[in-house]
Amino acid sequence: MTGRLAVALVHHPVLDRHGGVQTTAITNLDVHDIARSSRTYGCAAFYIVTPVEAQRAQANAMLGYWEGDRGERRNKDRTEAFRRVHVVATYQDAVDEETRVFGTRPLVVVTSARPQGTVPYTDVRARLDAGAHALVLFGTGHGLTNDVHAAADLVLAPLVGPKDDDGSTWNHLSVRSAAAIILDRLRGS
Amino acid sequence: MTGRLAVALVHHPVLDRHGGVQTTAITNLDVHDIARSSRTYGCAAFYIVTPVEAQRAQANAMLGYWEGDRGERRNKDRTEAFRRVHVVATYQDAVDEETRVFGTRPLVVVTSARPQGTVPYTDVRARLDAGAHALVLFGTGHGLTNDVHAAADLVLAPLVGPKDDDGSTWNHLSVRSAAAIILDRLRGS
Repeated sequence: MTGRLAVALVHHPVLDRHGGVQTTAITNLDVHDIARSSRTYGCAAFYIVTPVEAQRAQANAMLGYWEGDRGERRNKDRTEAFRRVHVVATYQDAVDEETRVFGTRPLVVVTSARPQGTVPYTDVRARLDAGAHALVLFGTGHGLTNDVHAAADLVLAPLVGPKDDDGSTWNHLSVRSAAAIILDRLRGS
Repeated sequence: MTGRLAVALVHHPVLDRHGGVQTTAITNLDVHDIARSSRTYGCAAFYIVTPVEAQRAQANAMLGYWEGDRGERRNKDRTEAFRRVHVVATYQDAVDEETRVFGTRPLVVVTSARPQGTVPYTDVRARLDAGAHALVLFGTGHGLTNDVHAAADLVLAPLVGPKDDDGSTWNHLSVRSAAAIILDRLRGS
């Protein structure tokens, strides 16, 4: 029996392009794409994290539409994808909610395009296959802050492709794309 | 020496929700996300395919902005990602352009969420690693038509995650997410 996997899309605290800490706005398409990827790869929950109350209200209104009769008539696959989406104020709230619902504290896994991560995807996949409970945090903006990295249990290695002729790599994926790839690596068949 | 990999995002001919043939509109974020994924995974070219001249003009205007000085000052990673994007009228134009530029006709590979595909990703990856030249077509809307499938050299198996309790799978990824995952499977390290 494979373990419980949940994901969170974090809008604060994340880095801006100058290395400062910012709060990003919720992007509608992030929610749609990551909800669909989460459903495809059997995630038990997808948390949208923002401290801004008006943004949480807006996200809940969108979820309410898709979970309601009108949304279901328009596209029932979308309704199905949104059923496991929850809106919370902090990533710690997501950790607490996972702990409350499932009865164990999840392994908190973070991802980054920066080179500090070293944990291979196969390692987290093996832990999940052995029954581990994990919550994977995805950062918007220019990525999760160092504080979030320091508080996590595991930091995944960056996603990279083939090297350029000069030996460098270029990894500027959108968070939507990165989340899709990571879920495929952790759960794809 | 790994082979040349190119991708194309096809807006016609694709299916609508009732199984008819439609032409979809270019979605700005598809272009951004797939350009970034293509650059990350070392694709030599990314073709945007639409028969609608006004849509091609609009796409070229966006590319012109990002490839110009103002776009480069705003986000040079975006400029870099857009450098290999080309706008063409038909997917056959993309095949012809690849043949002209590289001197060999590419293997035309199609992807689908429908179950008719059977070719494993590892097979196409091995061919690329052995030097094959391939063009992967991604369909918008409800996917590429059967005619496009029939004309292709290879049809990749659908992307699926773990089975639900009733044994079924749910795969309704966005084309942005599917393209990212497929490029990672073909070229990720």
